[in-house]
Amino acid sequence: MTTFPPPSFAQRFQKLADERSPFCLGLDPSRDVLARWNLPDTVQGLSDFCDRLADAAGESLAVVKPQSAFFERHGPEGLVVLQRVLKRFRAAGTLALLDVKRGDIGSTMDAYAESLFGKGSAYDVDAATFTAYLGLGALAKTVELARYHGACAFIVVRSSNPEGAPLQNAVGGDGLTVAQAVADGLRKLNDKAGRGVFPAGAVMGATLPPVDRDVVERLGGALMLTPGIGSQGAGFSDLPKLFAGRERQVIPTAARSVLEAGPEVAALKKALEAHQAPSRAFREGA
Amino acid sequence: MTTFPPPSFAQRFQKLADERSPFCLGLDPSRDVLARWNLPDTVQGLSDFCDRLADAAGESLAVVKPQSAFFERHGPEGLVVLQRVLKRFRAAGTLALLDVKRGDIGSTMDAYAESLFGKGSAYDVDAATFTAYLGLGALAKTVELARYHGACAFIVVRSSNPEGAPLQNAVGGDGLTVAQAVADGLRKLNDKAGRGVFPAGAVMGATLPPVDRDVVERLGGALMLTPGIGSQGAGFSDLPKLFAGRERQVIPTAARSVLEAGPEVAALKKALEAHQAPSRAFREGA
Repeated sequence: MTTFPPPSFAQRFQKLADERSPFCLGLDPSRDVLARWNLPDTVQGLSDFCDRLADAAGESLAVVKPQSAFFERHGPEGLVVLQRVLKRFRAAGTLALLDVKRGDIGSTMDAYAESLFGKGSAYDVDAATFTAYLGLGALAKTVELARYHGACAFIVVRSSNPEGAPLQNAVGGDGLTVAQAVADGLRKLNDKAGRGVFPAGAVMGATLPPVDRDVVERLGGALMLTPGIGSQGAGFSDLPKLFAGRERQVIPTAARSVLEAGPEVAALKKALEAHQAPSRAFREGA
Repeated sequence: MTTFPPPSFAQRFQKLADERSPFCLGLDPSRDVLARWNLPDTVQGLSDFCDRLADAAGESLAVVKPQSAFFERHGPEGLVVLQRVLKRFRAAGTLALLDVKRGDIGSTMDAYAESLFGKGSAYDVDAATFTAYLGLGALAKTVELARYHGACAFIVVRSSNPEGAPLQNAVGGDGLTVAQAVADGLRKLNDKAGRGVFPAGAVMGATLPPVDRDVVERLGGALMLTPGIGSQGAGFSDLPKLFAGRERQVIPTAARSVLEAGPEVAALKKALEAHQAPSRAFREGA
């Protein structure tokens, strides 16, 4: 039996975050990580990397975030591995948020949404990431398509890298910074989707110094994916400074600081719990 | 025999543009276009679409621009078709510029560059498109990798859609608009690469009213990919208004207005020549 509209990503995330933890594991099989794990830089190495993490995670994670680029590197066969890994995590009840940072216009964005969202699509993920250099308006239909499929489109608002600041802090004709304007637009897309659905999420880099608190407030109730924890500046202890009062909207995300514990499954398990425990504590305002 | 460094994209484009024409054909097998051509919305339909255009083009084109999203829609098998089509055009001496608009940071961008550029990479294209919401600085290494492989990274400066204007015209701390700052940064990347190499190109939407002429000047000698001709506002007769004095840097690009002539190969041939003739005339300042 299927229900329509399907439960939203936000609803599904909140339930899993309460049961498991809000922590999101980044699957980043870069050339360097494969080498550190003594895996060959091949489709087989890519596949083994993913299986070790899926073995370590079991049914413990709410969300995983595969980085598409590291699968695309291996060509079409790498994307077959991605499809298989997505199925493994889905079978474990884990949500898949594909980090693809697509950003285009019109029928091109429709095609990306069709490749990502919904039964019968190539990847059928629960969420994906997008960028707005061509304007947030160009992503409005993508957010609608995400909503239709119970998925979420996470749009980069503030990134964790220093090179992102000049553009994201530039001031538009309305007197708002680019990040503020994107945050406002994102909130409007969520308002339009109806109460509690939140088909538009925000990527908010969790680095120090803290991003403008004002941008966080402008997002309203949107979920915030916060990459960079543990290795790009901010630690779990910094999260309250960044997001106090918005704890239940935050998806703390890390890859490198977990992957460094590999390749042994037992060590990865331990590293995952070392990230999940403080994520739970932060969520509970502890 | 291979030479190192390999001839740059700019050198190869200029030669082909003189011999053939500067026109770039967009390969946009959207669901709508497949339907209009009476092709099924399947991998086979996608493949037939591409073969018809390759048949029509023969050895007449300098550059083709496949839109990745329309291949990604069909999953890994769609990308196998893309690989095959890229080989067909390469065999005809045509340069391939893959429209992927990737935009991320650090090792993720390295992985995208590794999937796109160089012998042994998944797609081995001559050029690809990128976006800079996460900062132009985050794309600097991508431009270096493109240069190393004799390829070109085309970065969106001004897009042809109205939704792009507020962000691209926002003003940074240096008093420059985002588009001006990206144009300046792009010129610096080209200066660093040495005389005549131009590994960084610009995507400049060819729509009316004309983009700020100042942005064009800031780009220096960079190549400019100008999508949107024929269907998004500007026609060939508008090109001199937009790019006078920079004719040899312009790659006039269109998809829809050619594809509308399909699916018959003879009609497509005629439509291609109807785009190539005015592209040549514009390039020659006629």
